Amino acid sequence: MSSSYGRYNSQSYAPSAPELPPPSNHTPLNNNYTQTSPPNSNYNNYYSYAHVSSSGYPPPSNFPQGTNPDVIRSFQMVDRDRSGFIDDRELQQALSSSFHNFNLRTIRLLIFLFKHPQESLTIGPKEFTELWSCLGHWRGIFERYDKDRSGKIDPLELRDALYGIGYAVPASVLQLLLSKYSDGSSRRVELGFDSFVECGMIIKGLTDKFKVKDKRYSGSATLSYDEFMSMVLPFLVSYD
Amino acid sequence: MSSSYGRYNSQSYAPSAPELPPPSNHTPLNNNYTQTSPPNSNYNNYYSYAHVSSSGYPPPSNFPQGTNPDVIRSFQMVDRDRSGFIDDRELQQALSSSFHNFNLRTIRLLIFLFKHPQESLTIGPKEFTELWSCLGHWRGIFERYDKDRSGKIDPLELRDALYGIGYAVPASVLQLLLSKYSDGSSRRVELGFDSFVECGMIIKGLTDKFKVKDKRYSGSATLSYDEFMSMVLPFLVSYD
Repeated sequence: MSSSYGRYNSQSYAPSAPELPPPSNHTPLNNNYTQTSPPNSNYNNYYSYAHVSSSGYPPPSNFPQGTNPDVIRSFQMVDRDRSGFIDDRELQQALSSSFHNFNLRTIRLLIFLFKHPQESLTIGPKEFTELWSCLGHWRGIFERYDKDRSGKIDPLELRDALYGIGYAVPASVLQLLLSKYSDGSSRRVELGFDSFVECGMIIKGLTDKFKVKDKRYSGSATLSYDEFMSMVLPFLVSYD
Repeated sequence: MSSSYGRYNSQSYAPSAPELPPPSNHTPLNNNYTQTSPPNSNYNNYYSYAHVSSSGYPPPSNFPQGTNPDVIRSFQMVDRDRSGFIDDRELQQALSSSFHNFNLRTIRLLIFLFKHPQESLTIGPKEFTELWSCLGHWRGIFERYDKDRSGKIDPLELRDALYGIGYAVPASVLQLLLSKYSDGSSRRVELGFDSFVECGMIIKGLTDKFKVKDKRYSGSATLSYDEFMSMVLPFLVSYD
């Protein structure tokens, strides 16, 4: 069985694919969470929460320098207790005004992929900013490949969109993925932005993880059982 | 990184683990769907539906010889149009009276794992009977390992239950899986029967698929990209 996920060489691979934050590669948290600037000042640059986490979890992160004020406003609008963290329903609310009314399952996948590994199911300013930027990329891709402007991506448009960002996904794999979005009728599956993001992140996330283990770009990789399970489980079931 | 999923050799492996039907190993459908016996007779042995599928999908299967009449009754109670197939909500209703009020996400995972590969998201009598038997096994395991009779399985009980059926799952893998069931609070995760079945089927399903590729029982396996994706996707997202 041969693989066809890579149509580019490793140099030019996936030039425009939205980046997920590498889960094991979080930069150490900035230490200025103890700044005592009031929460409403110093918005744009290194805005930080004055609270120190008392939960035993890492303290909240900061907005990266130069973050778009809209992003900061969206976060603050839902983080009413100023804890520096937002949970699934707060994220759903923050995104629904600017992007789309994501269902809670997608929201929890997003949190799981973007949250700090040691944090519970919440994200802070830095992760929210990364997620916002990633969703902006996916929205651009969605609009580019929704050629008939239907607001839905059909299977061929999905294939083309993934190909366009560097993922030549075999038809059998795409068919299997799309069958999970069938409502049981014989109607052709069409994906709204919500499911498109979910599909895209699953394909991109799993493929990128596989590629890390397939250093020679041969289309196959040797995985230990632990590696295999750890690669896969983040994309699985989400409590709802 | 070493693997520890197998504590038995391949001969004695997982003696009591409930069997999922191998997805690529469905026996050819029985051809007696054209029997003209009335739907309410001939219950126990080779009960079959008189309808011929007009959907282009395979015709419905039959109940295996000797099927418990309770199983047949449960199926028929929800298959009101006598199509020979039940969908997600009908399955949810059929199982809730005898097992548990499964949430729709679990139900759709069950359908996906048990349905005929060419069938849409519905199952027929044969698949329903297999699923019923599998859930019976899982219920036995749940009751055996819910030592404090709390009606919930805690992380240690889950580890023991999986170990008891032959799956020595590394702590890091279990922790990752359980984190998907956290409600975001710092409370310890406890699984009801519903989530226990879901966790068990995910661990068992993925591990069994991995083992097929790890013929020497070395703890690692070489997978093509297509194989990897096809192994994983059935356990992923489910439309709801």
